[in-house]
Amino acid sequence: MAYKLLILGAASATPTSTQYTTSQLLTMREQLFLIDCGEGCQQQLRRNRAKMSRIHHIFISHLHGDHYFGLIGLISSFHLQRRTKTLHVYGPPALENIIQVQLKASKTWLSYPLEFHPTQADKVEHILDGEKVDVYSIPLVHGIASTGFKFVEKPSLRKLNVEAVEKYGVEESDRRNLQLGQDWVSSQGETIPNTALTQDPIPPLSYAFCSDTQYSEAVIPAVSGVDLLYHESTFTKRERSLAEITKHSTAGDAAQIAAQANVRTLVLGHYSSRYKTRDVHLREAREYFPEVIAGTENLCIHVDHDSIHAVQE
Amino acid sequence: MAYKLLILGAASATPTSTQYTTSQLLTMREQLFLIDCGEGCQQQLRRNRAKMSRIHHIFISHLHGDHYFGLIGLISSFHLQRRTKTLHVYGPPALENIIQVQLKASKTWLSYPLEFHPTQADKVEHILDGEKVDVYSIPLVHGIASTGFKFVEKPSLRKLNVEAVEKYGVEESDRRNLQLGQDWVSSQGETIPNTALTQDPIPPLSYAFCSDTQYSEAVIPAVSGVDLLYHESTFTKRERSLAEITKHSTAGDAAQIAAQANVRTLVLGHYSSRYKTRDVHLREAREYFPEVIAGTENLCIHVDHDSIHAVQE
Repeated sequence: MAYKLLILGAASATPTSTQYTTSQLLTMREQLFLIDCGEGCQQQLRRNRAKMSRIHHIFISHLHGDHYFGLIGLISSFHLQRRTKTLHVYGPPALENIIQVQLKASKTWLSYPLEFHPTQADKVEHILDGEKVDVYSIPLVHGIASTGFKFVEKPSLRKLNVEAVEKYGVEESDRRNLQLGQDWVSSQGETIPNTALTQDPIPPLSYAFCSDTQYSEAVIPAVSGVDLLYHESTFTKRERSLAEITKHSTAGDAAQIAAQANVRTLVLGHYSSRYKTRDVHLREAREYFPEVIAGTENLCIHVDHDSIHAVQE
Repeated sequence: MAYKLLILGAASATPTSTQYTTSQLLTMREQLFLIDCGEGCQQQLRRNRAKMSRIHHIFISHLHGDHYFGLIGLISSFHLQRRTKTLHVYGPPALENIIQVQLKASKTWLSYPLEFHPTQADKVEHILDGEKVDVYSIPLVHGIASTGFKFVEKPSLRKLNVEAVEKYGVEESDRRNLQLGQDWVSSQGETIPNTALTQDPIPPLSYAFCSDTQYSEAVIPAVSGVDLLYHESTFTKRERSLAEITKHSTAGDAAQIAAQANVRTLVLGHYSSRYKTRDVHLREAREYFPEVIAGTENLCIHVDHDSIHAVQE
């Protein structure tokens, strides 16, 4: 199935009068996943008419403010909207206390359960085993503990080979088991292998988000083959030394990871405010990898098996 | 001297796609005072081209998020801009820890000293004895500890009565003491009283900010006679019972305080999102007090001795 990624903020460090810090809204298998939550994220969600009440999972990569200062406002707004459904927040362990001290100071007892799931940046972890989507955290290399996230659709049901199913006379009630991959036993006791009755399902789509990180090939196995890879690209190569000092990446770094991981398309972001356009980032990335999109505020990227295209909302 | 008040946010509870929660920037005697700091405040400052580096004092009324969730982002941005001058933050005691846990989580050692000044909501306190402006905190009545703030210009120097000064032959070097209110002794030993040589200075201007509060006449002595009074007006009288439950005020409440405190002009704000216009607030307030301005985002109110007028920036 298709998914879409809405870029809510693509600036690094501080918001400007028109730009927002890192936040993205992923809609995959009809579920909404919020990834990072910079200041003003909730306003960006409203401007893009996102269904805020359908956000049940928020993933925070690390505790630099440009990736989470909007979280407490969103948590608070959910409360004021009298939300009742559980909100799952995934992030570094210290985030839980940051949320709690602020709720306590305002004497707020949330109208809904908030379940906090601490991440750790030592190894890849399977942090959400959802009904329709699996989510993994991915260790990154930055000044403080930082993780990326990978979202993978659960495998679809196998497709029935309608001709074969009818030929063998498989009852309607047995067809679900075929879709789940089981073999079929006829009323005469004959076992027909599943592959004779079904076809492989559509392969799952995936998205990987590599938040603040220096260039690190260690990330490649975890993001290998994803359909869309976001990789931070704070700098261009003229600021290579600055990238090293601050443990950030250049656009060329991001593209080299994309190339080695054999992804379909790369999306850039987390630009330093020193750059007025994304032209140099795009040019430098394309030296290593052809399919590059410059992520910008309110850009929505649609991903399916046939194409990946971006629409400015 | 004239002062100006820029409304950065006038919404209550949560920002909307076009509105911001409480923040105001007061420019008095060439000093910038930031009053409350809702989420997105720093973007509003940038949009209004405020000289952020000249903000040295921030006053937080209370710890409901719509009054301070933008503070940590602003503190962080000052650091990223390599600020060196001391920032003074005034607010409820628990605010200090809220700031510190977030700085600690990002391993940030600020580039500038941050001096935290805890407020308390039991009595009026003189919290800033500045060179040009005095600031007082004012207890309010709300669900959690909440204070207003009053900003008063320091008295100007007395005005020399040029005719009299020349008649008595007061030396240039003695004139400063006259302006400070001292009597003058001539070279013949005769004492001339100050009032014979000077006139009263221009009276100091003042601004009072009454943040979240229910109707409370206890506030009147502290705001009596101010030139401009901001008083929250979350509701209109149709929501009177809701105002009582949530310990907020109606526009009529705000105007009754303004009338009893004999202020020059009242500015309204902190509107519930249920109201689409400010018409009913203005009409209800004017039943009690004639000079009312509806505070809205990016409205700048200019106050001098002759007039008070508002300009949409």
